[in-house]
Amino acid sequence: MFIVTGCAGFIGSTLVDRLLQEGHQVVGIDNFSTGQRRFLGSALKSPAFKLVEIDVLDLVALKLAFVGGEAVFHLSANADVRFGTNHPSRDLEQNTIATYNVLEAMRVNGIRKIAFSSTGSVYGESLVVPTPENAPFPLQTSLYGASKAAGEGLISAYCEGFGFQAYIFRFVSILGERYTHGHVFDFYQKLRTNPTRLPVLGNGRQRKSYLYVQDCIDAIFLAMDRARDKVNIFNLGVNDYCEVNDSIGWICAELGLKPVLEYSGGDRGWIGDNPFIYLDTSRIQTLGWKPNISIKDGVINTVKYLQRNEWVFEARS
Amino acid sequence: MFIVTGCAGFIGSTLVDRLLQEGHQVVGIDNFSTGQRRFLGSALKSPAFKLVEIDVLDLVALKLAFVGGEAVFHLSANADVRFGTNHPSRDLEQNTIATYNVLEAMRVNGIRKIAFSSTGSVYGESLVVPTPENAPFPLQTSLYGASKAAGEGLISAYCEGFGFQAYIFRFVSILGERYTHGHVFDFYQKLRTNPTRLPVLGNGRQRKSYLYVQDCIDAIFLAMDRARDKVNIFNLGVNDYCEVNDSIGWICAELGLKPVLEYSGGDRGWIGDNPFIYLDTSRIQTLGWKPNISIKDGVINTVKYLQRNEWVFEARS
Repeated sequence: MFIVTGCAGFIGSTLVDRLLQEGHQVVGIDNFSTGQRRFLGSALKSPAFKLVEIDVLDLVALKLAFVGGEAVFHLSANADVRFGTNHPSRDLEQNTIATYNVLEAMRVNGIRKIAFSSTGSVYGESLVVPTPENAPFPLQTSLYGASKAAGEGLISAYCEGFGFQAYIFRFVSILGERYTHGHVFDFYQKLRTNPTRLPVLGNGRQRKSYLYVQDCIDAIFLAMDRARDKVNIFNLGVNDYCEVNDSIGWICAELGLKPVLEYSGGDRGWIGDNPFIYLDTSRIQTLGWKPNISIKDGVINTVKYLQRNEWVFEARS
Repeated sequence: MFIVTGCAGFIGSTLVDRLLQEGHQVVGIDNFSTGQRRFLGSALKSPAFKLVEIDVLDLVALKLAFVGGEAVFHLSANADVRFGTNHPSRDLEQNTIATYNVLEAMRVNGIRKIAFSSTGSVYGESLVVPTPENAPFPLQTSLYGASKAAGEGLISAYCEGFGFQAYIFRFVSILGERYTHGHVFDFYQKLRTNPTRLPVLGNGRQRKSYLYVQDCIDAIFLAMDRARDKVNIFNLGVNDYCEVNDSIGWICAELGLKPVLEYSGGDRGWIGDNPFIYLDTSRIQTLGWKPNISIKDGVINTVKYLQRNEWVFEARS
């Protein structure tokens, strides 16, 4: 039986569906602070899926929920990178302390395998681009990156101290169906309100590397099937990048809009925003994985999903 | 006015004395969980010193204690590396969350300069030895190292997000007067109990690089005087190392003892113990610092201090 924290999130719910498709028993954990019950529409119809509505910060409840698990996919997180400095405790609690709780709940239940959704933000502003997993010891530049790096450190220490095995995935931005935050979501949301003008944080030249969510899940499954180290760390991304302006062009073309673009804020969107997260993914590619969907198609698939599911904007507002 | 957390500790109290000698006003913070009031004997006689007995985990009290500070030396920590796996929450709380509290108490008080006692343990088991500050992205191998690395990450993120300036010092083991944990202390303590036999964790071949506490404080002051980056990270150690067996030899010679050595536990002392922490200190040496006391003299000074101050064994037991 697999446990998925953040099971009602964008990536978490997609992972749950894939695990169920492969015939596994799944316990999903979510507090629905940002997760969406509708993302679990299919899973909740399956007898192999059990939903546990708790907060991962509730360690007592978490220990109970983990009984009988064989591995944990720890995907719950505060993914709101941008407003980290508005509430400095949030990343610490929801990412670092929550990861500690997951590890403790695993330990008392004898569960020793964990997959963790980390982020390319742990590299800060790397001087090595594309950035490999063994890049120089990074300087953290965001509370989000710091909190995820801290989670990675805890996981690695549990591997050494308690015989755990870990799969740590450092994602670029992920796109696709059920995508509910980030550039494409924000731009679409702004264009719904006013199709004639689009405010853009930064100068639009920020380069971004996006990975399609199903390609991301493929990589996670492949790594867990083939990698055998105590701590297995993989960058997940594509061998390509776009500028925010490219993405805006694809979104507007898909929507048939020609808004006036209003830039603000210099060469980055917000304090701690990294102007270029571009990861060297040769390690996961060496295992035999490659992405199937281009950045452009990922953006377009996402826009199409949002067009079919405008309810997500109400749910997130 | 300078603030020193962990002011009654080994390094903290030595730092307080040095700051007072230089004519500064100092507010010292300690909860005396491991700190020793007698280490503050001299400081408490100074009108320039104010002691605040609180726990750094009490954020409300910490914010009050920080009023009027211009910089913080954050030295309070759980320094008990060895038994990390016996109480997994302790490093998280006393090192990571405590550092978050210090940063928050600084932020609300408009204090933006912090010096932080980190550790060579943040490099895990580095493949690059001697290990430079920009070594490859490390895998954490102890809860202690993970918690200190997490503290570093938080500090760096506050520098980026809130305009702080930081001085992060990655120490090897520190020796000298008021030393109350680690190899020399443990060996001396065991020999007090039984001078005829000495149990040694590991095979005695573990290599260790020790720095004398006054050399350590010299380096801290020099770095804060001369380094000007937003985040200034320095390894602190000596260009030399010894084996645990060397250290045992110097201790026994100083004490005039010839115990039987009883080794156990293989090539490392405990789970997560790094068999060799040896740091490249060229960065701090380029600023003009070098250590004045050798490892051997540091060990002998420490033994002499313990001989004059056997009360520390009672206080720590």
